[in-house]
Parts: sequence; structure tokens; C-alpha cells
Amino acid sequence: MMNRRTFNWNLLAAFPALTIRWPQSASQLRVNGQRLNAHLTELAQFGKTPEGGTNRVAYSEIDLQAREYAMKLMRETKLEVSIDAAGNIIGRRTGGDTSLKPLMIGSHIDSVPQGGSYDGQVGSMGAIEVAQTLAENNVRLKHPLEVVIFQDEEGGTIGSAAISRGLTEKDLNIVTNSKKTIREGIKFIGGDPDQLTSVVRKKGDIAGYLELHIEQGGILYTEKIDIGVVEGIVGVYWWEVTVEGFANHAGTTPMNQRRDALLAAARYIDAVNRVVTSIPGRQVGTVGKIQAFPGAFNVVPGRVLTSLGLRDLDAAKVQMMFERIQGEVRQIETATGTKFEFKQVNASQPAPTDTRFRRVIDESAKQLGLTTRLMPSGAGHDAQEIADLGPVGMIFVPSRDGISHSPREFSKPEDITNGANVLLQTLLKLDVSLN
Amino acid sequence: MMNRRTFNWNLLAAFPALTIRWPQSASQLRVNGQRLNAHLTELAQFGKTPEGGTNRVAYSEIDLQAREYAMKLMRETKLEVSIDAAGNIIGRRTGGDTSLKPLMIGSHIDSVPQGGSYDGQVGSMGAIEVAQTLAENNVRLKHPLEVVIFQDEEGGTIGSAAISRGLTEKDLNIVTNSKKTIREGIKFIGGDPDQLTSVVRKKGDIAGYLELHIEQGGILYTEKIDIGVVEGIVGVYWWEVTVEGFANHAGTTPMNQRRDALLAAARYIDAVNRVVTSIPGRQVGTVGKIQAFPGAFNVVPGRVLTSLGLRDLDAAKVQMMFERIQGEVRQIETATGTKFEFKQVNASQPAPTDTRFRRVIDESAKQLGLTTRLMPSGAGHDAQEIADLGPVGMIFVPSRDGISHSPREFSKPEDITNGANVLLQTLLKLDVSLN
Repeated sequence: MMNRRTFNWNLLAAFPALTIRWPQSASQLRVNGQRLNAHLTELAQFGKTPEGGTNRVAYSEIDLQAREYAMKLMRETKLEVSIDAAGNIIGRRTGGDTSLKPLMIGSHIDSVPQGGSYDGQVGSMGAIEVAQTLAENNVRLKHPLEVVIFQDEEGGTIGSAAISRGLTEKDLNIVTNSKKTIREGIKFIGGDPDQLTSVVRKKGDIAGYLELHIEQGGILYTEKIDIGVVEGIVGVYWWEVTVEGFANHAGTTPMNQRRDALLAAARYIDAVNRVVTSIPGRQVGTVGKIQAFPGAFNVVPGRVLTSLGLRDLDAAKVQMMFERIQGEVRQIETATGTKFEFKQVNASQPAPTDTRFRRVIDESAKQLGLTTRLMPSGAGHDAQEIADLGPVGMIFVPSRDGISHSPREFSKPEDITNGANVLLQTLLKLDVSLN
Repeated sequence: MMNRRTFNWNLLAAFPALTIRWPQSASQLRVNGQRLNAHLTELAQFGKTPEGGTNRVAYSEIDLQAREYAMKLMRETKLEVSIDAAGNIIGRRTGGDTSLKPLMIGSHIDSVPQGGSYDGQVGSMGAIEVAQTLAENNVRLKHPLEVVIFQDEEGGTIGSAAISRGLTEKDLNIVTNSKKTIREGIKFIGGDPDQLTSVVRKKGDIAGYLELHIEQGGILYTEKIDIGVVEGIVGVYWWEVTVEGFANHAGTTPMNQRRDALLAAARYIDAVNRVVTSIPGRQVGTVGKIQAFPGAFNVVPGRVLTSLGLRDLDAAKVQMMFERIQGEVRQIETATGTKFEFKQVNASQPAPTDTRFRRVIDESAKQLGLTTRLMPSGAGHDAQEIADLGPVGMIFVPSRDGISHSPREFSKPEDITNGANVLLQTLLKLDVSLN
């Protein structure tokens, strides 16, 4: 392994084609922050909402236009641009060593409905900026470079899943926020749903993947830290929860004769919070959905549909929390004369990032004079899917007030520039150290 | 006051027109239970559902047909039938003393959507049966008799309100379950919404009102008691409750940075139950409605719309419960970083029944060999509106399992017959004792 403090000169020596302009060392390479932030502002025009956010759901007309814009930027930086059969945009640049697998950088540009202008977009424009910085400084990597804009991340990391595990018929038939099925959407954005097997890669097909992203939470912002070194993407476990009681007249049914499904659900929601917060750690538990039937002033609710979401880096801890919640639920059932049913509808396993990648990200940030902290990603990301193919790393920048998936989502231009510089430096170092 | 144990003979003596057939004394008069229950079965054909219930919302085609059926029965018993401007069906029979105000008996035949075949219908068919029993035994009351089928009870005691307090423009514009406004509905069933002032009566315009009804709760059924002597109709107080928190990403927002509106609402729902059940008495408190926004697995709910319903015979107790709930809410707001808002949308005051009426109902039941208990009516009834015009009394019969507003609503034929006999005997006694 090379000495990283001096690798830049060795790197330059390794590529005779490299013509040095300025800066003279790879470790001094910096992205053009002004240009990067200008690109983000331009991108935000596609689907701009009156509230100042972005409405750019995957497979919409606006998504298509924004993709064209991203491909134009990629072509301007001499990436060889193609759309794979799954609809992902891939900008390729050959590396110095043809025997090596590609290093991937990227993110996504689709948004949630009525979302913000930073989620995914910072990492996508950041990756293009890194490629452009390399190009205009005539730095050719040893590894082939792939700048990837994954399609439909917000609909469940669909584009990256297509590459890592392949899409199923069931996936393809899901109706998305664009009203198109994923199959129709893939066609719409230039993919070919009949050729999806061609895009599936296997473990070892990539040298690594790096993703820059906004934190989407308030840890960096609250603690005034520049860069989050992501230790992994938490597992996300969802259950649909049904509570059966008995609907009856709210005026004529004495309190002690009720089997109130909403009272039971209320106690359950409080129990979830109590269980999750009673254990040390950064796990989260959320009840986000609720419906009461019949849902009238004058009827004791007979049935409630609600939810459970648990997330942690440690699947065993999630299991333990779920069991404790079940214990609480048994007591609630007895006390309220109701019956709970839990149906698991999502179980994405935790995806730890690569420890070397974490170390290099941390080192790169510190060399740039930035403060760092190790942290989990509570949100799902394309990196989670790609972790099945090779080592991944994620770089977080602060989100103001921790707000995301909202028009109020915001990251400061200097934080974005910092993140892109960490991405650039990490890429350069990994290019040298990885085979 | 007459000695009730012997009044029948006095009564007979008071009416020279009375031709005695069999039975020879008024206290021995009994309704024809078989005929009454057959009428209920016939009535249940109008809007019969596959589940065995009744779907007969006010102002529907089915409602119109059922009203025709009821009017036919009334005419068969020689009542003088008319539809007032508010659409109420009134069957009149003149009394022996023209100086007296009428005694009213009746109920309603409209149902909730997908309701049962007993609510309102037992009292309506029961009142007609009482009139028929009087007619075929040639018993003429001292007071004029009015058998009334109030229209649209389930939409908010609309027909009886039209008589007692008058309908407002706002009332008339309400869109009902029939999709018609109340104004359109009144026209549809043969009333005249432009002549509504003609139906409004004032305090003292009636000698009294008696209503037979199913309990709609489980007290009589559970305690195996034949007749409920209603001490009053509880006040019904409804609030729309809004909980404002802050919506954020369920994966990235640490537990201690959340302002979870659904967690706050859950604690509120539990607090309502705790407050209401911590006070001795038969008051009830219900949270029947809830919606969480945005209502997704992966978003901490930022806003919740929910409700509060409190009922009791004592308005001061309701006020006290509301204040205690407010105290709990202040603590929940502080603990969860949320804000609650309560908007009162209904406040119908308690309507106590007349103490003499209660005594006569209880006495009549006991003379029939029936067990009784004094109880509040948790549900609203037309009697509540009519209480503004004169003394009212209500007679309850058991509901199987306390179920109402459901196809599973059921009262035993013998209980219904018992109730109608109590109605008959009470009417006869009050006719003599009231001026």
C-alpha cells in the first residue's frame, strides 16, 4: 500500500499521459464549488414548486427533463454517457489500468412528491463535478470511473436494485407516484424492461462505490460538524399493524363494556416509543400511519390500521425491540379486549460501509481541515443496494434543522462544496490503494 | 290525583262514548304483540341489506317507501294522517277534552347507513300499535293523541328540531347521506321548506311526549332487566382536535429530536380514557376519529386530526372532565413539543325526562310484572328536542349484546311487546293525570 501522504507524485508518475497544470498535486485538487452549486440551482428548476422545493418523482416528464440536463453536464465533462436497460444513467471514463473493475460514484435526482432540492441531487451533481475536476486537471484514474445517476431511488432504490439484485415481476408492476408502473417508467426514461438481466452485476464487479449525500437528519447540523462518515445504512423493518376491537355506539356503551381499538392503538404507539427510547443507542422506532374505522365522533372505533417502523444498524437489536413491543402488546390486548396483528412488509437488512472506505473518508476530510463524526444513515440509499457488489462508502453533509423530504430541505453551498471535495479526495486515494 | 290502582273504572266512567268489549279495564289493555312484531318485519323489508340490517337513510327512495307503509298503517287505525311542512308524519286522533294539548307518542323510521331494523322503528311501530289497541278497544283518550314519525332523526334529530327550535338556513343546506340537502329532502318527502315556521311549537303546546326505543347499549341486556326508565338524554359535546408537531424523516430524525404529533395524540387518547374512567358515574368519553399527516411508514407524523366526545346527564361534570383533559394535554404538549387545539363542534345540552313520567313508566312496567331500572340515554333522541315543548318520558327495551347502528342490532319480540305495553299503560295513566 502506498504512503498516502506522498501518493500524488507516485500517481502522477504512473500516468505518462497526465499533463499537470494547476494544482500540481492530487491532494491539492479541489472541485469548483461555485460551479457545483450553480448546477444544483439549475437542476432545481426542473420541478420547482411554489414553496421552493422540488417535485420530480421518478418517470415523470420533469424527471425526464432533469435527466437530459444531467446527461448534458456529463457529456460536457467528456464522460461517455449511456442509459442502461434499467434506466440508470452511467457516465464512463476509462482508467489507466484496464484490468481493474470500475470505481463508481453517484446518487439520484428523482425526488419524493413535494420534496426538496438537495436529497440525491447533491451527490449526483457532486459526482459530476468530481469527474469534471479530474478532467480539467487531466487526472486519469487507474480504475475506470462510472458516474451513475440511479433511477427511482425514492420509490425504493429501484435503479440500484436492478444492478445489484435484479428486479422482479412484482417490482415491475408496482404503480409509482408518476402513475406509471416501474415497467412503464423504465421504458419512458429510455431503458428496456425486457433486457433487465443484462444490467445485473455480481459481487466483485465493482472496485467500490462512493456516495455523497445530505444527512437528512439533524445530527451534523446540531453538533456543527462538517462531514458525516457513514458507518452503515440501517436496516429498515416495516409492519402493517391491525387492531381489532368492536365498534359500538359512543353514547350508549359504558366505558367498561368497550373494546376500543383506538384506545388500544394509542397505548401501543406510546409503548413503541417507550421501548425504543429505553435502550441506549441510535435506533429509531416510528408509528407513521393510522386509520380508525368507522372513524366517527359517535362510534367507538372497532378497527384500527396502523404501522410500525424500526431501524438500526444491528438487526439483532431490531429483533429485540420488536419482541419487547410484542410483550407490551399482549398486555394491551388483555386490558382492552382487542387483538393485534403484525404483518411484516419490509425488511431491508443493515448495510455496513467498508471500514477502509470510512477511514479514507475521515482522513480526507481532516486533511481538508473539516470536522467529522462517524454516524449511521437512518435513511435508505442506493449505496445500500450497491454494498452487495463491493465495498461502499458514504459521505454526509449537514441538513439545516435536520429537515428533508420537504421544500424546507437545505444544505449550505460551502457544506456541499466540502462534501464534494471529500468525495474527490477519497476517490483519488482509493483509486491508488484499491485493486 | 286519582288512585291509579282504580283509575281505570273512573276513566271508563269519564267517557260515555266508551263501549267496553274485552278487556274490561284500561289497566288490562294489552297491545297485540304478534301484530306489532309482524309490522316490524314488514317495515324491515324497506332497505333490507344482505347482512340482515336496514339501509334506509332519510330522504332516500327507500325512506319514502317506508313512510308510505307507516302512513298506511296509521290510516288503517283511523288516525288522521298528514305530513307537516318539515316532513314529519303526524297521525292525529281527537281527544275527549278539546281544551287539552295533545299527548304525543312516536319515534323515527330512518336509519344510519347500513344500520339495523330496530332503532327508531320499534318506537314508531310501537306507537302505531298503541293507537290501534286504543282504537279497536274503543278507548278514546281525554287528550288529543298525536302519533309522530319524525323525519331524519339520524341526521341530527332534524324533524323534531323543526318542531321544537326551528331549522336554520345552515341546517337546510346540510348535505345528508341521501346526497340531498335537508331542504331538498324535506321537499322530496312531501314537506315544504318554505313553510317551516308553521310547524314550530312553543313550550306548553304539548301535554307530553313518550318515546319507546331500544336501549342501543348493553346495560339492560347484561343485567337482564326488561325495561329502562330513562332519566334523561345525556348532553353530547364534540370537539375537533388538531395536534401540530413537525413532520420529519423517520430514519434520520433521532428520537429526542422529534415532535411526533401521533405520539402526542396517542398519549392524549389514553389520557381521555383515564380521566373519564377515574370519576364515578356513567359518563362516557370517546376518541372516534384520527388521521395522521402525511401518514407514511417513513415519516414522523407532523400533524394529527382527532376528536373528543364527552357525554353525561350533568353538563358541569362534562366541563370538569374537559378541564382535566386540558390539564393532561398541557403536559403532553411540553413532553412532545407539540401543540393541541380544540374546536367545539357540538354541544347539545342534557335533556332530563319529567320525574312524574319516569314514575308512571316505572309503575306501569311493574304492574305488568316487568323489572325496571333508571338509566340515562347515552344516545340522542327526538325526545331531547321535544323536551323543550313539554314533559317527556322514554322507555327502553334491551338490545342484544348492546349492539346498535349495525345489522347485528336485535331486540327480542317479547321485549318489544313489553315495551309497547308499558307505552300503552303509561299513556293511559298520564292521560288521566295530566292536564
